[in-house]
Amino acid sequence: MPSRQVLLDEFQQISGRIFELYREINAHPELGLECHDTAKRIKATLKDLGMQEGRDYKLFGPFAQSGFAIVLYNGDGPRILYRGDMDALILQDLTGLPFHSTIEGRHHGCGHQLHSSLCTANAVLMHRLRKYWKGTCAFLFQPGEEGHGGAEKMVAEGLYDKLGFIPDKILFTHVFDQLPAGTVGLRAGETMAGAAFWNLTITSEGGHAGRMASINEVANAFEDLFYKLPTKFSPFDEVLVNISGRETSSVINVNPTKIVLKLSARTYQMPHLREIERKIANYIKGLAIIYEIPEDSFKLEKIVECQPLISDAAMEQSMRRFMTSLVERPEQVRTIVPIMSSEDAPMLAYQILFPDGSRRNIPILMIRLGVQDPDAYDADFKLKPGAKAPLVHTGHFAPKYEKALETGVVAIGGGLIEMFGDKVTR
Amino acid sequence: MPSRQVLLDEFQQISGRIFELYREINAHPELGLECHDTAKRIKATLKDLGMQEGRDYKLFGPFAQSGFAIVLYNGDGPRILYRGDMDALILQDLTGLPFHSTIEGRHHGCGHQLHSSLCTANAVLMHRLRKYWKGTCAFLFQPGEEGHGGAEKMVAEGLYDKLGFIPDKILFTHVFDQLPAGTVGLRAGETMAGAAFWNLTITSEGGHAGRMASINEVANAFEDLFYKLPTKFSPFDEVLVNISGRETSSVINVNPTKIVLKLSARTYQMPHLREIERKIANYIKGLAIIYEIPEDSFKLEKIVECQPLISDAAMEQSMRRFMTSLVERPEQVRTIVPIMSSEDAPMLAYQILFPDGSRRNIPILMIRLGVQDPDAYDADFKLKPGAKAPLVHTGHFAPKYEKALETGVVAIGGGLIEMFGDKVTR
Repeated sequence: MPSRQVLLDEFQQISGRIFELYREINAHPELGLECHDTAKRIKATLKDLGMQEGRDYKLFGPFAQSGFAIVLYNGDGPRILYRGDMDALILQDLTGLPFHSTIEGRHHGCGHQLHSSLCTANAVLMHRLRKYWKGTCAFLFQPGEEGHGGAEKMVAEGLYDKLGFIPDKILFTHVFDQLPAGTVGLRAGETMAGAAFWNLTITSEGGHAGRMASINEVANAFEDLFYKLPTKFSPFDEVLVNISGRETSSVINVNPTKIVLKLSARTYQMPHLREIERKIANYIKGLAIIYEIPEDSFKLEKIVECQPLISDAAMEQSMRRFMTSLVERPEQVRTIVPIMSSEDAPMLAYQILFPDGSRRNIPILMIRLGVQDPDAYDADFKLKPGAKAPLVHTGHFAPKYEKALETGVVAIGGGLIEMFGDKVTR
Repeated sequence: MPSRQVLLDEFQQISGRIFELYREINAHPELGLECHDTAKRIKATLKDLGMQEGRDYKLFGPFAQSGFAIVLYNGDGPRILYRGDMDALILQDLTGLPFHSTIEGRHHGCGHQLHSSLCTANAVLMHRLRKYWKGTCAFLFQPGEEGHGGAEKMVAEGLYDKLGFIPDKILFTHVFDQLPAGTVGLRAGETMAGAAFWNLTITSEGGHAGRMASINEVANAFEDLFYKLPTKFSPFDEVLVNISGRETSSVINVNPTKIVLKLSARTYQMPHLREIERKIANYIKGLAIIYEIPEDSFKLEKIVECQPLISDAAMEQSMRRFMTSLVERPEQVRTIVPIMSSEDAPMLAYQILFPDGSRRNIPILMIRLGVQDPDAYDADFKLKPGAKAPLVHTGHFAPKYEKALETGVVAIGGGLIEMFGDKVTR
């Protein structure tokens, strides 16, 4: 079992190049499944840090266009998959950092530049510390996490067939905007909600704004109904809906011929998504009658759906113990609360087809990684009054990446190594 | 033609008893078609002022429960009907007057106590000034103007058959809360809108407020749609809708089993009321689907409908000339603007069945009577800044009845006499 000092020393050896990778990816954000440049930068970093394909790891892919996996074989033992996602958001980078986004309207607002850098760093760490573990470790670099179904696509494209094994456990890291760099967060059970994303398209003939009815009114009526959907379920079932955006015209005096509403619903009770779809169908029928437009003026299209993240309790217990021994102070390992945001990582673990023909879930664990400025927090890890901690999915989000990556390698990477020797019975 | 002085002298003779009648009716407001007590007080006043049934007038009725007409025969000539309504409103009397309403929750908030007192006064005036006119004059005392279809019911019950004639002209007076006592108001053409009143009843099984959906949400959704109806018509067509009230439960923690929405729509284009009913039917169909309740949970019932008041242009021209010669200053005869409130008086004149089998409209004219405190208005009849003029259909509405009745007798009563000699060709 490597000590904190060993891990810190290893991190010192590689951190310069990893920080560089972080800044490179941050400056060149890619969207959706098209993370080719990011993938190249990761592979170049592996090479720069002395890892040779074929000799030190085996490369698999591409999956979902630009995704790939590298697998480290290290004798008999557990088979664990650690995943990092790569894609950025359609957002203006407002950080003002020297290595800010060089591509207008794209920004790593969800920390995937850190996830992929950390995944790279931990692959190198595991390679360098082979003497501490036995087994097979896959590092999965995934594109299209942000509403593009990247995880589901990778599985559908035969990820596990091509790897030649189904992992015993899956781990991944996600930045956390509610904690300072230097901390990690864990929980067992319900962690992130399941979600579905739909486009509802409403079309009409349009016309002069001074003469004809606008489908804006229909869209607004639908939105009013949609936003009330949570009231149709028990509050115990935690249903959250949102309409993140609207594609429409912005022309003066001409009614839109097409409006697309970007719908989403989140819940830990997946059958509720089916009930929501049933209700949406009723809303469409009813609104067609009320507004006297053909029912086929409405088109509902599902963009992506993902399962809730139910963190494996045994993995959580083990990882908590491992990480607590690797951080400076035990209280740097925090317990997080369940949230209604979603992750597509559970799709790597959900109802996977095993060689015996059965479909089973793979135990999965998310490790939250604090990324905010430690000076903004008090001793109890509460944000100080007046202190700023920019939120994810905003243009100002800017992880304190050096400290966060150190913790990500020492605590999470170290914990990952220990997971190979984990004897906890589930 | 009686001079202003003659009319003033006559008014002096009768005003004491008329003011008393006004205060009596004001203190004992009756609702809907049940204006029996008011009718008795009017008949007693006629008697007190020397008019004997049979000798001086013939009594017809009852019509619409408590309505009646008295007819003064005075030789050959025009046959004119002058109408006063009698019913009060469900309103708290907040006037604080010595002769305030003695019946809790009832108030003459629409001036019908003044209309019926004035109708009584003008009947007496016409009797006393028989030498100035020739013809037949009917004074119609009508109950149930406030949403009870009194006018329509009187016609349906054979008013004109029983009178034995269809009037050549119909006049009526309505108080006006936008002008001071001492003024009258007139206009030709569109004057008051047509209207329909409906009850929309929504029923459900109710249930515990912590468990089941409430039909309040359905009612609110209907109201939102209903209030947007005017946007479905050209603004040139002046469509106004309102929901004046809601019958529902006020019990804590129990969802209502029944909600009644008091709908109304007003327009000068009566076919639009049919279009509104068609749309309401669609709203019901659509909402039944959206809220997953049976379509027969909704019941739409029309309470009353009345035609718009299109004031006869020739009558308006004549009456303006007559009244202008009878007021102190010509500018006391004002020109009013069309409004969206309704009157059921047009139902006395609309598509009446004539002996030749045809249906025709009778020329009709409303004369507005200012009732507010003259001191509250400037020389241009504009309300002075900060001055108060309580509106109709409020608990504070309190006509300056002495001055208003004087003007109502001298200008309107005098004008009515002159109308019998009117030679204006229509």
